[in-house]
Amino acid sequence: MEFQVIRKDGNARYGILRGTHGETETPCFMPVGTLGAVKGVTWDRIGQMGYSLVLSNVYHLYLRPGLEILQEAGGIHPFTGWKGLILTDSGGFQVFSLSKLMKITEDGIYFKSHIDGSEHFFSPEFVVEFEEKIGVDIGMVLDECTPYPATYEYAKHSMERTVRWALRSIRARTTDKTAIFAIVQGGVYNDLRLKCVEMLSELPFEGFAIGGLSVGEPKDEMYRITRLVASQLPEDKPRYLMGVGKPEDILEAVEAGVDMFDCVIPTRNARNGTLFTSRGKINIKAAKFKRDFSPVDPECDCYTCKNFSRAYLRHLYVSGEINAAILNTIHNLHFYGRLMKDIREAIKKGKFQEFKRNFLEKYSSQEGSG
Amino acid sequence: MEFQVIRKDGNARYGILRGTHGETETPCFMPVGTLGAVKGVTWDRIGQMGYSLVLSNVYHLYLRPGLEILQEAGGIHPFTGWKGLILTDSGGFQVFSLSKLMKITEDGIYFKSHIDGSEHFFSPEFVVEFEEKIGVDIGMVLDECTPYPATYEYAKHSMERTVRWALRSIRARTTDKTAIFAIVQGGVYNDLRLKCVEMLSELPFEGFAIGGLSVGEPKDEMYRITRLVASQLPEDKPRYLMGVGKPEDILEAVEAGVDMFDCVIPTRNARNGTLFTSRGKINIKAAKFKRDFSPVDPECDCYTCKNFSRAYLRHLYVSGEINAAILNTIHNLHFYGRLMKDIREAIKKGKFQEFKRNFLEKYSSQEGSG
Repeated sequence: MEFQVIRKDGNARYGILRGTHGETETPCFMPVGTLGAVKGVTWDRIGQMGYSLVLSNVYHLYLRPGLEILQEAGGIHPFTGWKGLILTDSGGFQVFSLSKLMKITEDGIYFKSHIDGSEHFFSPEFVVEFEEKIGVDIGMVLDECTPYPATYEYAKHSMERTVRWALRSIRARTTDKTAIFAIVQGGVYNDLRLKCVEMLSELPFEGFAIGGLSVGEPKDEMYRITRLVASQLPEDKPRYLMGVGKPEDILEAVEAGVDMFDCVIPTRNARNGTLFTSRGKINIKAAKFKRDFSPVDPECDCYTCKNFSRAYLRHLYVSGEINAAILNTIHNLHFYGRLMKDIREAIKKGKFQEFKRNFLEKYSSQEGSG
Repeated sequence: MEFQVIRKDGNARYGILRGTHGETETPCFMPVGTLGAVKGVTWDRIGQMGYSLVLSNVYHLYLRPGLEILQEAGGIHPFTGWKGLILTDSGGFQVFSLSKLMKITEDGIYFKSHIDGSEHFFSPEFVVEFEEKIGVDIGMVLDECTPYPATYEYAKHSMERTVRWALRSIRARTTDKTAIFAIVQGGVYNDLRLKCVEMLSELPFEGFAIGGLSVGEPKDEMYRITRLVASQLPEDKPRYLMGVGKPEDILEAVEAGVDMFDCVIPTRNARNGTLFTSRGKINIKAAKFKRDFSPVDPECDCYTCKNFSRAYLRHLYVSGEINAAILNTIHNLHFYGRLMKDIREAIKKGKFQEFKRNFLEKYSSQEGSG
């Protein structure tokens, strides 16, 4: 994997990340394809929207379809049919949030499948092995995601274990075809975060993620930790803020020097009828859209906005039609793709601050509080 | 509307049907878009698959979004964003099968909405008015769909009423922009069917449908009635066999001289994991596809078969991913579109019998009884 910062505007960076399966400009947003598919949208559309890097998840892929089938298929790319870059989260977060966590030891994580209750074990080594064997472009290390709130002692303990696991992950590597990113933990404690960055930065990772945020902490805590960590991470490596987020969060983090993002918000919101527009979010269920024959966002040039009205999308949604999820997802992912493109253009022109201010002013005008 | 039979091969016909919103070659299959959307597939793909005529439904559109909204939008085309031809079934069948039928009188049908139990009334005149107001290319008359089994007396009674309603429908017309098709009823009774054809043929309909089949009667009854009715319908008008059907049924009916078909089978089956292949149907859920990295149908050139394996589609299906419905629907509709195209080519070459024999031989080899 190669990463190059081409232009800086304040701390905001415009760059290019190249991997085995293509390249992406940064800052970028990764659509979430947990199970090897972005819910509601086919890969050809993902590509047409300009996305060349998507996220998947070791925890989910390990349970279904499982390593054996992925390997027999020749890896995750042949199996899923996605031809671009793939980053996999290790599943550390899912073990905490979704599965029945049984036990964390120094060895790794014992957990029960959320599907059938079967018992499983992830070690840092196994996660790297899994990621290499299925041939992802970027694999995340197994980490211990610190919840919020957590005591200083707890956060310190899990941060230190995350660092030890990161070291084991590095040692477990057998190829450089799969880049491995470390994850910075440390809760909301500045000194723990700094210590974590210091220790991880010495290890030969291709990139660094900021983990353990967007887990319930107040916004200003999230922004503070993001700024702090991003300012201390190596300049020449990509920085990835995991699980974030809303457009306003992405803008804050880009300003702090973050390069990569992922979040279920655009896709999950779409399926719930919440659509992003340049003037704020709207909920397409609202009765006021019954006779609204204008597009979701007049400034949007996605397939949905070019061809369908709010009234039609509302009709599909309230009728329970699967096409509501499809068209809404196309729009929201297009909105995010466009936001990232505009961010990159602004950085290239040295006008990121201006762009951010203008975007937020308009976005918070809240045309639709529906 | 214009219809032209260009080539005959036995009783099978190749033709062209032209309407306000384009044209379609016949024999053709109409994807079902009950609520103004074909479940699981966006209009651009429907068009790319070669479909230029789709089916919708007055009963469903009347309940949601309702006439007022459809009119305010400027009709069904602007509302749904579909730019090709639209045929609407009157909803007579849905009133019997889906809603709580309250009463049929000579005036029309009193029924309760399947959504909220509210009470409604459809007259033959209202259905034509609705179809004209929303601007469909082809509207079906309101008919009384004879169930199976039905006594001779019952079938005679409902056939005669259907003819009287057809006459009222003709009288209610105010424009020729919306073509109106009559529906032949008469159950499985030859003389009733012939009488119905005789009476309807005298009226200035742009086309004729064979209704009341595929409602539970044995296959040979369906084929017998189809052959009988098709042989007596006017040569110069399109013939539409409603709600049919399976590939083998379509072939039989084309042989009898039928030009148009609709059925939920390809789309509904897709959502249930049943996929059509040149060697029979398969159910993608089956465990045997777990490691089957071949496409659904090696002879198919649809987006799904070109890019994804049975193993991946099975994975999506068993994981409950919405993309299973999307990719399966693309495949099944493509299969039906291809079947109709091959049928038309065969008729044009005078080789329909040969095509039918070859298709069925291969199709019944049942590679997949999964």
